[in-house]
Amino acid sequence: MDNAWPSDELIEAIFDESRVPEFGASMFELAEELWPLNRSLTGAGNRETLAILKREFPDLVIHEVPSGTEAFDWTVPDEWAIRAGWIKTPSGEILCDFMENNLHVVGYSEPVNTTLSLAELQEHLYSLPEQPDAIPYVTSYYNRHWGFCLSEDRRAQLQDGDYEVFIDSDLFPGSLSFGEIIIPGDEPSEVLLSTYICHPSMANNELSGVVLAIELAKWLAALPSRKHTYRILFVPETIGPIVYLSKHLEHLKKHVIAGYVLTCVGDDRSYSYIPSRNGETLADNVALHVLKHLDPKFNHYTWAERQSDERQYCAPHVDLPVASIMRTKYASYPEYHTSLDTLGTVVTPDGLGGGMLAYMRVIQILELDCYPVVTTICEPQLGKRDLYPRVSIRGTYENTLLLRNILSWSDGVTLVSRMADQSEENLSVVYDVLRQLQHHRLIRVRRHRAEHVVPTILRHD
Amino acid sequence: MDNAWPSDELIEAIFDESRVPEFGASMFELAEELWPLNRSLTGAGNRETLAILKREFPDLVIHEVPSGTEAFDWTVPDEWAIRAGWIKTPSGEILCDFMENNLHVVGYSEPVNTTLSLAELQEHLYSLPEQPDAIPYVTSYYNRHWGFCLSEDRRAQLQDGDYEVFIDSDLFPGSLSFGEIIIPGDEPSEVLLSTYICHPSMANNELSGVVLAIELAKWLAALPSRKHTYRILFVPETIGPIVYLSKHLEHLKKHVIAGYVLTCVGDDRSYSYIPSRNGETLADNVALHVLKHLDPKFNHYTWAERQSDERQYCAPHVDLPVASIMRTKYASYPEYHTSLDTLGTVVTPDGLGGGMLAYMRVIQILELDCYPVVTTICEPQLGKRDLYPRVSIRGTYENTLLLRNILSWSDGVTLVSRMADQSEENLSVVYDVLRQLQHHRLIRVRRHRAEHVVPTILRHD
Amino acid sequence: MDNAWPSDELIEAIFDESRVPEFGASMFELAEELWPLNRSLTGAGNRETLAILKREFPDLVIHEVPSGTEAFDWTVPDEWAIRAGWIKTPSGEILCDFMENNLHVVGYSEPVNTTLSLAELQEHLYSLPEQPDAIPYVTSYYNRHWGFCLSEDRRAQLQDGDYEVFIDSDLFPGSLSFGEIIIPGDEPSEVLLSTYICHPSMANNELSGVVLAIELAKWLAALPSRKHTYRILFVPETIGPIVYLSKHLEHLKKHVIAGYVLTCVGDDRSYSYIPSRNGETLADNVALHVLKHLDPKFNHYTWAERQSDERQYCAPHVDLPVASIMRTKYASYPEYHTSLDTLGTVVTPDGLGGGMLAYMRVIQILELDCYPVVTTICEPQLGKRDLYPRVSIRGTYENTLLLRNILSWSDGVTLVSRMADQSEENLSVVYDVLRQLQHHRLIRVRRHRAEHVVPTILRHD
Repeated sequence: MDNAWPSDELIEAIFDESRVPEFGASMFELAEELWPLNRSLTGAGNRETLAILKREFPDLVIHEVPSGTEAFDWTVPDEWAIRAGWIKTPSGEILCDFMENNLHVVGYSEPVNTTLSLAELQEHLYSLPEQPDAIPYVTSYYNRHWGFCLSEDRRAQLQDGDYEVFIDSDLFPGSLSFGEIIIPGDEPSEVLLSTYICHPSMANNELSGVVLAIELAKWLAALPSRKHTYRILFVPETIGPIVYLSKHLEHLKKHVIAGYVLTCVGDDRSYSYIPSRNGETLADNVALHVLKHLDPKFNHYTWAERQSDERQYCAPHVDLPVASIMRTKYASYPEYHTSLDTLGTVVTPDGLGGGMLAYMRVIQILELDCYPVVTTICEPQLGKRDLYPRVSIRGTYENTLLLRNILSWSDGVTLVSRMADQSEENLSVVYDVLRQLQHHRLIRVRRHRAEHVVPTILRHD
Repeated sequence: MDNAWPSDELIEAIFDESRVPEFGASMFELAEELWPLNRSLTGAGNRETLAILKREFPDLVIHEVPSGTEAFDWTVPDEWAIRAGWIKTPSGEILCDFMENNLHVVGYSEPVNTTLSLAELQEHLYSLPEQPDAIPYVTSYYNRHWGFCLSEDRRAQLQDGDYEVFIDSDLFPGSLSFGEIIIPGDEPSEVLLSTYICHPSMANNELSGVVLAIELAKWLAALPSRKHTYRILFVPETIGPIVYLSKHLEHLKKHVIAGYVLTCVGDDRSYSYIPSRNGETLADNVALHVLKHLDPKFNHYTWAERQSDERQYCAPHVDLPVASIMRTKYASYPEYHTSLDTLGTVVTPDGLGGGMLAYMRVIQILELDCYPVVTTICEPQLGKRDLYPRVSIRGTYENTLLLRNILSWSDGVTLVSRMADQSEENLSVVYDVLRQLQHHRLIRVRRHRAEHVVPTILRHD
Repeated sequence: MDNAWPSDELIEAIFDESRVPEFGASMFELAEELWPLNRSLTGAGNRETLAILKREFPDLVIHEVPSGTEAFDWTVPDEWAIRAGWIKTPSGEILCDFMENNLHVVGYSEPVNTTLSLAELQEHLYSLPEQPDAIPYVTSYYNRHWGFCLSEDRRAQLQDGDYEVFIDSDLFPGSLSFGEIIIPGDEPSEVLLSTYICHPSMANNELSGVVLAIELAKWLAALPSRKHTYRILFVPETIGPIVYLSKHLEHLKKHVIAGYVLTCVGDDRSYSYIPSRNGETLADNVALHVLKHLDPKFNHYTWAERQSDERQYCAPHVDLPVASIMRTKYASYPEYHTSLDTLGTVVTPDGLGGGMLAYMRVIQILELDCYPVVTTICEPQLGKRDLYPRVSIRGTYENTLLLRNILSWSDGVTLVSRMADQSEENLSVVYDVLRQLQHHRLIRVRRHRAEHVVPTILRHD
């Protein structure tokens, strides 16, 4: 029996959701500051981004991994530097100016400085016929290539003639930069939060995750105590987690009890869930509990619909318990991976606040879930503790039902979160009752499920 | 292998349901006799009730537990005696006369003899605004208090002025009385049936359970044999089971294979089921089987909707396999806990007969369920035993399907009750076929499930 | 780790479904040849049938089991020989001539040569009032009897008078004949296919199974290799499997991994499935996978609806993993067990081809299903192997999703068939992707499920 009742200070701090609007505004402001930086797999934009994040959370550590480093089946690529890029039309107009919008140049474009016919140029142009006013986001990380992205509308107006193309870029042995925050807890267990810093000018499908991770770090660090250690990663997508896993796999497999990929957490349209590959990990159970209460109509996606870094964290042989709670999932909203995924349109302070709230609730459960055990055999006498009205008339019983149910579920094998599910109340409401009961010494708590106890099966409810 | 085929006498007696209407009438008559007695947690009304029950079933033993006895978190309260109670209105009218209806005085009222204003009196009056013609049933067992109950209609007519109130009652160290019937069986296993004797003038939500328990005791005692011991308790609600469990918990945990709380078994409106806290005990499985056949539209309540003594029998650390089959559940019919829950209106002989039938069927299964095993490898040749027509034409096979199915399910891991579920037949019909097969030595039976046998999985059916 | 990647030759041969129409035509032709033979439990018609089957597949072995041989609860009956049978009406007309249709004489009729009144004759006549133009199929194997079958229409026209009846038959100690094909495989595991040869002039409910079994034998024998041994039985229904099981039960229990009863596989109206008694064997899983892809509206029958030799193969104490895939199930189509179940009307080449296709797909899975395991930790880099487009734009990811999903499911505990289910593709499509991955050494395969691996749970999909 491990009686680990959390402090009143922790309970009050962790259930305080009153500052969510303030968090939303603060995240939006930080996202505006990060917006213009040219993030990619590597390069100056990533380092500038990480420097700002370190200013926000000084314990963030910036790591550099040299180009050419092997990581499982992958190799860290050359670093990419870009200073300028544009097309000059036959009539002398400047098109696709990188200075105007960093999406205009295909990510990892090699340098070019030449003149081509329109037909030749077309081989290097990217647009979206089905969305004629959007500039697509295009990359070519692992194959030497150059190209420009523009709207289908603009492309349609191009006239025959000679086009001058110019990209002032370098690809050279450098390093891949990533950030890591570790906020220690009282126990060896860890929670992994991973977000990515490689998409330039993508508000929901990138920056929302970055600013949420920083806001969560601040909120976590300010809690009176933490049971778990929180490991928060700011890495370029795909290659970043692979590099990180290649260095820390054994440690993570041993310590991570739950993890989440933070992305697309800034719009206010819906909530969404991508399961871990396993589908039944603690990360999944907690996410489902939170979403069921927060938005019963949330989108329940399947593992087959994943696209982000859970691909690596959950890969066979890695198998970490990593899921994802999003607002509106990548690849399912029209602005996704185009110049239309912007701050203020797709991402809003309210949307970010909603993303923050979901992860605060995840952490409430990860920190506080436990197995209460009633200290009496048979029901305790509630009346003598003023937990039941003096006079019993029809309806009296029903009015104390939540407390009675919580007592009856306090069998050492039923989680507080399960009680919240069962009674369709927030965790904080169930905790209020548990605090009353704890005050009267009517319950104690276990962190681990009791053995040899017949569980209360709630499945009919 | 334990070949425990029941005697033909037992099979015939236990499946004979022809006397159900007679049982219903007999129960109703006994309920009428018990109706006027002033039952409460303790006191003369309870002893008079138990004396009549002992007259009906002489093996009933009456126990007395002194006030002040500790039982887990509880203490047996003082005994309550009441001789009279009334209010005299300013105009000299006698109101809320206890002699007229024992619901008029709040249960466990302390003595009072004084005069008050209407405003002062209102603090001691109880009525139901939403049901203006009903007198509510009110108690104040563990807090010293006095009060009167009346209809909202009558209360509304009260005029200002001086009211004389008089309650001639005593609260004194005495004892709590309860009754216990033990009907022995051939094996150490026990079935627990518990009903309560503390509600004055409540027909369905009390007396129906009491008279059903007596009728079941008579029926059980008259069976040619019993496998299990039947332990039948007549106790005041809540404190009664707690006192009983405090004395017998270890014995009950060791021997009780199934139990039921008998209450609200006297109306003819519906059937209802409250699961045990565990939800998957033998008591639950049997109750669900019986109700599925008896009334497929039965109300399937959840553990969170319990309100009676299963609260104690199923409490964490107690965890007995106790469920409840009811007709219409307490707190779900309008007359509940009011003066309208009466004999003849809510409770009828047919209603009681239906309650009796449900529990007879429960006992049929508890006594007779077993695991048949076919004695041949491959199907037996039915024709040579005249179990199959001489000539085979289209349709012949189908006509012997029930027998063939029962043979094919006789694998040592499939219960007879499961066969009944599967074939949508009553247990007695399946037993008729099994008797035929047993006669031809084509099956033997096991009481315990065979090990190392792949079960017939019926789930697709 | 058992890396058992099948040869390209096997993959190509086993997934080649182009010859199905040719198989259908060939089966129909063989059925026409077998049609006139008078099959029964025993006798010349069965031997003639087996001789033709041996001509088709020379490795077929014909066994004879003497009358009087004991087999579990049964005894091999006397052999039946019939040379003629007819009724002469009062007006001299010949009715129910066996030469015209072998259904006219009740199977196993004893000899008779006498004259009776119409009333006496009626005791020996069989017809179907609900289907007045059909001659029913009637037998009396284990009770000495004689009789004639005719249409209800014809029977209604019979006039009073003297009827001469003549059946020239013998019942004598002889033997029961059955055929057995064993096509060896590389491993000790066996697949059992059983069909029956006792119904005269029944196209779907008999001959379809016989000709499918022969066609499957030819196809199996022509595969470049086989993992499993295929044991194919041509036995009279009921007594045949009982006799066979009485001789080979221990061997079959040890080696058979899946089996099927082949019957009613020749019409083109629907697909149907009868589970094994267990319901969750490999035979069931494979059948359900095949039918879900082949015809999502297939009829999913229950064990209680079985009527054929799975009764013996799945009987308690036998418990072999034997299910049945049919086109339209016996006893569920109007022509069943009547003279209307004929070639060309009920059974067609297309119908037979569809039956063949279903069992070819069963064998594809039984031979090729396995547990792939990805060889990299984290995702492999697809781009450097030309498995991913050079340039990444919206939609690129989705276009490689099947390959990515297959990689992510390659965890050593997920079957290829499960991947096919999950992605709603045929097994051959998943195998095409696996071959690509195997070519790049990105997967290896296990025949047996890996232990100590958290499975990918696909249940949300």
